[in-house]
Amino acid sequence: MGKAGLPVSPLAPASFPDLPVIEGVEFASGAAGVKYQGRTDVTLIRVAPGSTVAGAFTRSSTRAACVLDNQAKLAQGGDAPEGAAIIINSGNANAFTGARGQESVDAVTGAVASALSLPASRVFSSSTGVIGEPLPHDRIVAAIGGLAGALDPAGAAEAARAIMTTDTFPKGASATVAGEGGEIRIAGIAKGSGMIAPDMATMLVYVFTDAAIPADLLQQALSGGLNGSFNAITVDSDTSTSDALILAATGRSTAAPITSLQDGVGAAFVTALHGVMRELAHLVVRDGEGATKFVEIAVTGADSDADARLVAMSIANSPLVKTAIAGEDANWGRIVAAVGKSGANADRDRLSIAFGDMVVARDGWRDPDYDEAEASAYMKNQDLRIAVDLGLGQGAQTVWTCDLTHGYIDINADYRS
Amino acid sequence: MGKAGLPVSPLAPASFPDLPVIEGVEFASGAAGVKYQGRTDVTLIRVAPGSTVAGAFTRSSTRAACVLDNQAKLAQGGDAPEGAAIIINSGNANAFTGARGQESVDAVTGAVASALSLPASRVFSSSTGVIGEPLPHDRIVAAIGGLAGALDPAGAAEAARAIMTTDTFPKGASATVAGEGGEIRIAGIAKGSGMIAPDMATMLVYVFTDAAIPADLLQQALSGGLNGSFNAITVDSDTSTSDALILAATGRSTAAPITSLQDGVGAAFVTALHGVMRELAHLVVRDGEGATKFVEIAVTGADSDADARLVAMSIANSPLVKTAIAGEDANWGRIVAAVGKSGANADRDRLSIAFGDMVVARDGWRDPDYDEAEASAYMKNQDLRIAVDLGLGQGAQTVWTCDLTHGYIDINADYRS
Repeated sequence: MGKAGLPVSPLAPASFPDLPVIEGVEFASGAAGVKYQGRTDVTLIRVAPGSTVAGAFTRSSTRAACVLDNQAKLAQGGDAPEGAAIIINSGNANAFTGARGQESVDAVTGAVASALSLPASRVFSSSTGVIGEPLPHDRIVAAIGGLAGALDPAGAAEAARAIMTTDTFPKGASATVAGEGGEIRIAGIAKGSGMIAPDMATMLVYVFTDAAIPADLLQQALSGGLNGSFNAITVDSDTSTSDALILAATGRSTAAPITSLQDGVGAAFVTALHGVMRELAHLVVRDGEGATKFVEIAVTGADSDADARLVAMSIANSPLVKTAIAGEDANWGRIVAAVGKSGANADRDRLSIAFGDMVVARDGWRDPDYDEAEASAYMKNQDLRIAVDLGLGQGAQTVWTCDLTHGYIDINADYRS
Repeated sequence: MGKAGLPVSPLAPASFPDLPVIEGVEFASGAAGVKYQGRTDVTLIRVAPGSTVAGAFTRSSTRAACVLDNQAKLAQGGDAPEGAAIIINSGNANAFTGARGQESVDAVTGAVASALSLPASRVFSSSTGVIGEPLPHDRIVAAIGGLAGALDPAGAAEAARAIMTTDTFPKGASATVAGEGGEIRIAGIAKGSGMIAPDMATMLVYVFTDAAIPADLLQQALSGGLNGSFNAITVDSDTSTSDALILAATGRSTAAPITSLQDGVGAAFVTALHGVMRELAHLVVRDGEGATKFVEIAVTGADSDADARLVAMSIANSPLVKTAIAGEDANWGRIVAAVGKSGANADRDRLSIAFGDMVVARDGWRDPDYDEAEASAYMKNQDLRIAVDLGLGQGAQTVWTCDLTHGYIDINADYRS
């Protein structure tokens, strides 16, 4: 269902997963004609009274009006005694639209608040698509009545399709945790990061659970998972003005409420939530523009976790590393250069590099057992793992990226919208 | 003369410039067969007794043995009462070669010292090419006798060719300053930054002048020019393990010695030197892999020069900006996103963006007079200028880059060495 002419990523899963219904969450998607014709482009999500909400957003200094609005609303607290809603449109990002941007957010979230009898402060919104164009918010407002009448607990898969812009496949993931007195379910959908000029690399993620969990613990569980999921992926080092992750917990599970993230069920919930977040993040990388390889980069032995992250992102964002991977070239020299430019502490003569299980460089030089043919054969895999040990300390970070191919240039330079 | 199959960059100048002879500097180039066959790959440069020497080198933490050796030698001071020499080879970078790296540097620089009766501490060296392979330094040592007998003040153009690896054209620039009692001449050669796996993005620059100038002032003049030349260019954000700039002044001009960089001739010398450095830096960008556009990015109005640099480099390194330029797409939204992710202070609603003389965005939104057809027409130029004003303070930085094209992917992913 990606933009016409874009084939589905070779890294896409075989099918959309069978997501569990999260009691207390309903979805409705429709076609408002914001920009695209002949497809759904607007989604309304209602979360039941008594839910709690948490979020994470882009740190871009040029972030879109809806992101600023969501942040302001969440800063008032994550409790939603009357319930909450999320309204999402594709086709227009409502970014870099000056004061008109906030007016559009107010119009759309106000209409949802009226339709669902919610305080406007509990209506969150996301917009993704072209930037610098005023959002034709009247079209969205006109669609809200119909959406409000069509809310359906089984609508997640349809919503995952409606929020796509230039994605080549819809993205979903779920997990189940054994609580005390019943199961706790977690289900999420995401979009990103296929891009076509002038669309933005927007990543939007919505995760729902029927856990009963206070807003502060929910936010803590979410925040703790970012470093191992959405903040650990990169397609091309470019950051969107609109990235948003919203997590809502309805408390409708029969399981006992979660009162601590350290205890058995709380800890299991955190692990499961982080697993769903990581899976959705990996799906975004697997839909990276032009991607033909999914690459895990694991850095260990750094002076600190922050240094390990610098090195991992320097490798993951290096055009030379990414083109070598596209060319199935075991070019570890480019990894050495990426380590060197990262700004992290590194000692050339303690550096080791492995491709999969194969050590290619050790202690500052090519491994004596290095076998070019074996390394080249490994590079033909679709999923690759590059491990770098700096030999200095205990700092570690793993990140995920894709290769840089002619497909990326096709999508971002040759196609014109 | 680039690697077989690589056409000369469309951004190349019509011909190599007619460099003035710098009295006291001699060049000899030859074919040592380090890696390439049928071309020159080794260059010896001798600088006359009484010269001063200055340098600037990559900050990579995985830098090559020759870079570390040059830095150690220059740390002893830039005076060369007995003269100095530079020995350069292409085809092998002698990088990430463990302790063998320094042994090779010692062998090559020691042989030059013997042949030219110089202290080894005044023999500098550079190696560029494949990394992780031991340097076959015997082949270079064997060539040194012949090179020492062939030194020629008019050999700069030949040297500019011999130091090329995957460059598609040789690079040179010069300037003349009116001194008191005669002219001061400056001439430089450079290589970079065509890359083919597994070659490195090495940038090597050698600049010579017949000015009489103390070593500390020479270093100061050089260092002051980096921010506006070699540290202000980027092809693909990747940093070499081997970048080096060496500047030598022979004092053979009839002009009076330079004793201050603030006075008339000293200030003129600095301006001329910085002009030569900037011209060589621009030539490196014009030979960027796959480049079809030369792009100046001028950032003003930042809180500080450091912030302006963050923003300028964020734009210059953004794959989305670079592919939009390749596609001749006036996609200013991608520039907004690059500003936002830079980490510099920015206020969305004060941001202005111009392409050439055409303001496309002002005060956080598309300019009311924006004309898509006019903007698209501008993007068809080979040389482009993008100006970003943050509207906050006095910080400014200009950088230069090229576009990101299928040619880049061809060179770095499809070709195998």
